[in-house]
Amino acid sequence: MNALDIIIKKRDGFVLTQTEIDYFIQQYADGAIPDYQAAAFAMAVYFQGMTPVETADLTMAMVKSGDQVDIASIRPGEIVVDKHSTGGVGDKTSLVVLPIVAACGLPVGKMSGRGLGFSGGTLDKLDAIPGFKTQLTPQQFSDQLREHGLVLVGATGDLAPADRKLYALRDVTGTVPSIPLISGSIMSKKLASGAQAIVLDVKVGNGAFMKSVDNARDLAEMMVAIGKETGRQTVAVLANMDQPLGQMIGNVLEVREAIDVLKGGGPQDMIEHCVTIAAHMLVLGNIADTLESGRSMAQTTLREGYALNKFRKWLSLQGGDVNIIEDATLMATATFQQPIYAAQSGYVAQVNALTFGEASVKLGAGRAQKTDVIDHAVGFEVLVKVGDYVEAGQTLYIIHANDGSKLATATMQLQNAVEIEDEAVDALPQFFGVVS
Amino acid sequence: MNALDIIIKKRDGFVLTQTEIDYFIQQYADGAIPDYQAAAFAMAVYFQGMTPVETADLTMAMVKSGDQVDIASIRPGEIVVDKHSTGGVGDKTSLVVLPIVAACGLPVGKMSGRGLGFSGGTLDKLDAIPGFKTQLTPQQFSDQLREHGLVLVGATGDLAPADRKLYALRDVTGTVPSIPLISGSIMSKKLASGAQAIVLDVKVGNGAFMKSVDNARDLAEMMVAIGKETGRQTVAVLANMDQPLGQMIGNVLEVREAIDVLKGGGPQDMIEHCVTIAAHMLVLGNIADTLESGRSMAQTTLREGYALNKFRKWLSLQGGDVNIIEDATLMATATFQQPIYAAQSGYVAQVNALTFGEASVKLGAGRAQKTDVIDHAVGFEVLVKVGDYVEAGQTLYIIHANDGSKLATATMQLQNAVEIEDEAVDALPQFFGVVS
Repeated sequence: MNALDIIIKKRDGFVLTQTEIDYFIQQYADGAIPDYQAAAFAMAVYFQGMTPVETADLTMAMVKSGDQVDIASIRPGEIVVDKHSTGGVGDKTSLVVLPIVAACGLPVGKMSGRGLGFSGGTLDKLDAIPGFKTQLTPQQFSDQLREHGLVLVGATGDLAPADRKLYALRDVTGTVPSIPLISGSIMSKKLASGAQAIVLDVKVGNGAFMKSVDNARDLAEMMVAIGKETGRQTVAVLANMDQPLGQMIGNVLEVREAIDVLKGGGPQDMIEHCVTIAAHMLVLGNIADTLESGRSMAQTTLREGYALNKFRKWLSLQGGDVNIIEDATLMATATFQQPIYAAQSGYVAQVNALTFGEASVKLGAGRAQKTDVIDHAVGFEVLVKVGDYVEAGQTLYIIHANDGSKLATATMQLQNAVEIEDEAVDALPQFFGVVS
Repeated sequence: MNALDIIIKKRDGFVLTQTEIDYFIQQYADGAIPDYQAAAFAMAVYFQGMTPVETADLTMAMVKSGDQVDIASIRPGEIVVDKHSTGGVGDKTSLVVLPIVAACGLPVGKMSGRGLGFSGGTLDKLDAIPGFKTQLTPQQFSDQLREHGLVLVGATGDLAPADRKLYALRDVTGTVPSIPLISGSIMSKKLASGAQAIVLDVKVGNGAFMKSVDNARDLAEMMVAIGKETGRQTVAVLANMDQPLGQMIGNVLEVREAIDVLKGGGPQDMIEHCVTIAAHMLVLGNIADTLESGRSMAQTTLREGYALNKFRKWLSLQGGDVNIIEDATLMATATFQQPIYAAQSGYVAQVNALTFGEASVKLGAGRAQKTDVIDHAVGFEVLVKVGDYVEAGQTLYIIHANDGSKLATATMQLQNAVEIEDEAVDALPQFFGVVS
């Protein structure tokens, strides 16, 4: 067995054996297979694809390349359900969903990442809360999960290093957009961090990585298949990302919106999204019998303040300032808050998620490169949704900026982000189905 | 412009501009683009192909990466015609063709390579001639070409280093069998070494790199198109390589056969092949008006001994022992000469070129790896052709070996190389057409 034969076999469209995939990934992780062979392999996979079994083998090979967190032993007898979003604009779902499900008795021990490009990471949002610590020792992680059932940290240890190495290579070789490679990358991190069941929040639309429903469904089906092959029950929700989720984009602003929802308020689409994801998690974790009862439990935690209490506890356990819940101004605020008004009356035909996402990166709310420093205060409040009727002069969105020239750039960049038409426009569907 | 964008553009099936190709190849040659990006690029080209214009741009970019020999200025007013064989088993064409065309007044200043795998290189064959020097200074090369019109050396200087680097990478990344990449590689070396017109001897069959006539025609058409795009008249002859060319395989044995042909003897297929290639060269070089008159001129040089005289002169100019022409035993001879007899009477249905080629490498006549040392004495005399009638007990081929265990291995390996059937079998076609 050698790397070249494996590359050629895949290039020619044949199905690789588990032994071949294990060999390739292990040797690559060890540095015995050089980057140039892995790059050729990744491009061959881009063109020829992989079967679900091959992709599951790839996933497990990457899991085996590093540490594996044994969460199951911390809360024996319970199912630790993870969630993962493929990333969108204004996606602060985890901040709401994790307290909801924890309040319902589902233990949450989650490892999360930082964001790159227009989709922010949960860790970046938590960093916007003064004092909140995302780096805990393994012992602190275990203790908090055992005693309080809710903990979230930055990935520690050496989880799926082969994936990290391969992802960095794909990023510079044009081999990112491959369903099996994306699926394997996501699932390897989830499996290595101990997930026993997984709810995938697969975003579709111009503000997401997957632009078409068909592509997103292919990705969802592949990840669900990997779950089946590796014995982890997996459900994927296909959610629209043609317009931003909720109203807030930017780290402090998103924390504020999450708190609004936890307090029983917040935008309708954001509530609906969080309740849906939470309900699926509760079903997978055997807390709810049906999706409907899961939804009802989630709604109760929001209405009765159980989720908010859990959130407060979570913040205090990880050192965050709980006073932000009552006084959001304890978090960073931007110097400029520039409202942008509708130039005409009519119906909102587009709220371009991609444009808002890209503008948020330019503004400093996200990273264009890994080393960029985030400005937590900046971002956008987007006050309209597709289908809404607006009057001329009504505020469409507010730009929060700390720098006059960046404000000017954002204003220019967003000029056509919201389109208004005379004719009535249908609201966008929020979901495109569930894959399980 | 950056490497990643170029990879993605090609991955997605778009046509690259000359500027993009120049940039990629130059940066790769300079080491600014790493091997892993070039590997991904090569695999993308493997799947998406290149247009003739792109391939010509690739060729010229590789030519520009190094030295360019200005042969035209050595023999001003004349057209220096090069030839190139894509490699086959028993292919000693250059040893005969170059003296033929030089005897007709066509100047030959050729750079050649060593062989790898079952197709031997012309330099290896010349090395089998005691004293023959293939390394000349540029001055010696020029002088010999100017004064005598026939010189052949190993590639000197730094011809198409980008091609050398890219070829080495393709060899270990499963990206060798790509028509544009093969074409660009071959043509860049020809163009850099100063060819003003080129006759391509494209071999097709199990003993060649191209296994099917369709593939070989695609390759030929692409190389002819590159010739057109770069202003070098190019003709490709598609020649059968399902059975070895001529009777001899192995370096000394092939020199012996070449001398036989130059003396007016030798196997019919070998004569026909050499006359055909020579005739095309004479037409491209404006020495002959028509292919028919080119053939006739070539046949005359063989019949009248002009080509042999030119060969003798050539050997003496480059230090080779001319006495080998009269006494072949002055070259290395093998210890064992083992004839293999027909087990039954009947018609020869197959003389498997690939099997003979692979066995010749094992025997030591060729290199499996670049560092292998060649045993010039060993090889095979293959005395039958497909379609021949043979009597049981008649000699089919003779194994020339210097080592008992290698002889045994070759005997085993060749057991089914020659197939004999009761029913009459048609002779194989020798050519599959000309692309120009």
